[in-house]
Amino acid sequence: MSFKILGYAAQTASSALATYSIDRRDPRQDDVVIDILYCGVCHSDLHQARNDWGFSVFPVVPGHEIIGKVVSVGAGVKKFKVGDTVGVGCLVDSCRHCSSCEQGLEQYCKEVATQTYNDKDRHDGTPTYGGYSEKIVVSEDFVLRIPDNLDAKSAAPLLCAGITTYSPLRHWDVKKGSKVAVVGLGGLGHMALKLAKGMGAEVTLFTRSPGKEDEARRLGADGVVLSTNPDQMKDVADHFDLIIDTVPYEHDVNPYLSTLNLDGTLVLVGLVGALNPAVSTVPLIMGRKSVAGSLIGGLPETQEMLDFCAEKGITCDVEVIDIQYINQAYERMLKSDVKYRFVIDMASLKKEAV
Amino acid sequence: MSFKILGYAAQTASSALATYSIDRRDPRQDDVVIDILYCGVCHSDLHQARNDWGFSVFPVVPGHEIIGKVVSVGAGVKKFKVGDTVGVGCLVDSCRHCSSCEQGLEQYCKEVATQTYNDKDRHDGTPTYGGYSEKIVVSEDFVLRIPDNLDAKSAAPLLCAGITTYSPLRHWDVKKGSKVAVVGLGGLGHMALKLAKGMGAEVTLFTRSPGKEDEARRLGADGVVLSTNPDQMKDVADHFDLIIDTVPYEHDVNPYLSTLNLDGTLVLVGLVGALNPAVSTVPLIMGRKSVAGSLIGGLPETQEMLDFCAEKGITCDVEVIDIQYINQAYERMLKSDVKYRFVIDMASLKKEAV
Repeated sequence: MSFKILGYAAQTASSALATYSIDRRDPRQDDVVIDILYCGVCHSDLHQARNDWGFSVFPVVPGHEIIGKVVSVGAGVKKFKVGDTVGVGCLVDSCRHCSSCEQGLEQYCKEVATQTYNDKDRHDGTPTYGGYSEKIVVSEDFVLRIPDNLDAKSAAPLLCAGITTYSPLRHWDVKKGSKVAVVGLGGLGHMALKLAKGMGAEVTLFTRSPGKEDEARRLGADGVVLSTNPDQMKDVADHFDLIIDTVPYEHDVNPYLSTLNLDGTLVLVGLVGALNPAVSTVPLIMGRKSVAGSLIGGLPETQEMLDFCAEKGITCDVEVIDIQYINQAYERMLKSDVKYRFVIDMASLKKEAV
Repeated sequence: MSFKILGYAAQTASSALATYSIDRRDPRQDDVVIDILYCGVCHSDLHQARNDWGFSVFPVVPGHEIIGKVVSVGAGVKKFKVGDTVGVGCLVDSCRHCSSCEQGLEQYCKEVATQTYNDKDRHDGTPTYGGYSEKIVVSEDFVLRIPDNLDAKSAAPLLCAGITTYSPLRHWDVKKGSKVAVVGLGGLGHMALKLAKGMGAEVTLFTRSPGKEDEARRLGADGVVLSTNPDQMKDVADHFDLIIDTVPYEHDVNPYLSTLNLDGTLVLVGLVGALNPAVSTVPLIMGRKSVAGSLIGGLPETQEMLDFCAEKGITCDVEVIDIQYINQAYERMLKSDVKYRFVIDMASLKKEAV
């Protein structure tokens, strides 16, 4: 049993995104039906639409930074009611009983969590379609409450860019006085600056481009280090407790490892690939340093992050676009020409309705 | 002011070790003079004697797994008296006031700790000479107490091989029920098995050579996984909390990363070099795993390790040799032909005395 809604999909790896009529399942007992107001545009949307990772199943309806209003709920839903402002991030389900799920770390589900799009529903095997659409149907356990004082459009990217940087900051125990550096100033990087600052850390941006000083400071950085400048790098040798590396392509992490203090950790959240050039073990051994990775966050931590952002007044810097602009937006994303996240105003989809 | 003693030294990178008359300083206020009974033979002795790392200053008198008897003490020495059985490891001094030293992590001294040999004394700039010698003079703060019930000769390698594996096991909180794997079965690896078992862990040896099962079990392993066997590797996917990788040459760590559980860490203690082939970030990100390094241990932890070994009856498996055999011993070490550590009986040095 399903109902038809309108969305935007890539039909093949080489086709532009265009309107597509989606089958959404009728809500099950535990489901919330959400009228989508805004959907952030993540780099992975583009990668999946273009099958860059080789596992796209078309049509792909991207979008996993979703904010909307509850328009109906299944009979068993307890946490949400019609009219609530809610969010949906990268996950819409998981096994719910493994050791990871039991800790609220659904992103690390041992049976692999269900992705918001380009995946299959665990119960009926139907494809999952993301937030570039009018509505989405999601089990209440994978729905987040959006605090009233968060601006809906600029909160949307918190559901991926926000939690992806918040989770390692919390896991590696960033607090007042922690020394945190961020590599890369994009969607993830600008959130890492804001969130680390919100946690009370001393925050530094590593950049390879001069001239980002003012912008970085506006976003919460206490300092900016030009990683191509040996003197500036030497000034921060053995300095940082934690580095959040948001760069999504291969790059040399060795210069950053030298800037970690004893027991410091460099956490990769952007690069899915190989650590090339090779990592030297010398700084690791000589300072008990670590290179680690981190993946989004679980549902409890995502809610915690939203509440934290509401309390601290933290949202994303966004450029709101109509859905009809999405293909141009992808091209601009490839050139890093966005400060710092595109968010689709889903009202624009109504123009397409017959 | 100094006194002459006999030792064994490499005079150049290509010369065999042979007798050498060493100047030892007269004891300062805080110094302990130790008559050396036994000295373990570490791989780094060979590397430094042959200048494999490029920073040897000849003559090199190797040896940093030293056990001996106190024969005299400086006027200010409080912790030791003549007749005590004591040990000296890789370090004989450090700045003593940096943040690392203040935590008892002298191995990570911000001003670089003084190595037992092939280094310079911090006060008078004279060369440091190691344990392949009759006597050594060391500040009491860098001298360890050897518990009475530890056999001196088989305890000697605890000062390097023991603490190098004990420290990461403790730092990454191994306890009853922890799942620990060890890569490599040499001087470090065999100690890692014994120590992890002593801490109550479930211990597995990774090996590339079949036929080590009985030997590994004798040393404390609960299981052995042949890392070249895909089925055996699959059986331990997502299994270990901690992997101690003792392999001292370049090797692929990626297969081991797949066997780490969520939040697991692979700690490199043997490889000083590059992580080639490149590490994939995928297991790191998908399981919040880490690759880390660790260097020997600080003085308080080294004492803790010795006391732990005494309590648990843990020592090294050693082959005791005369100092005259040292050059053959190096050749056999290069072929991993030793179970598991050569230890020099320093009484043999008396044969050389005129």
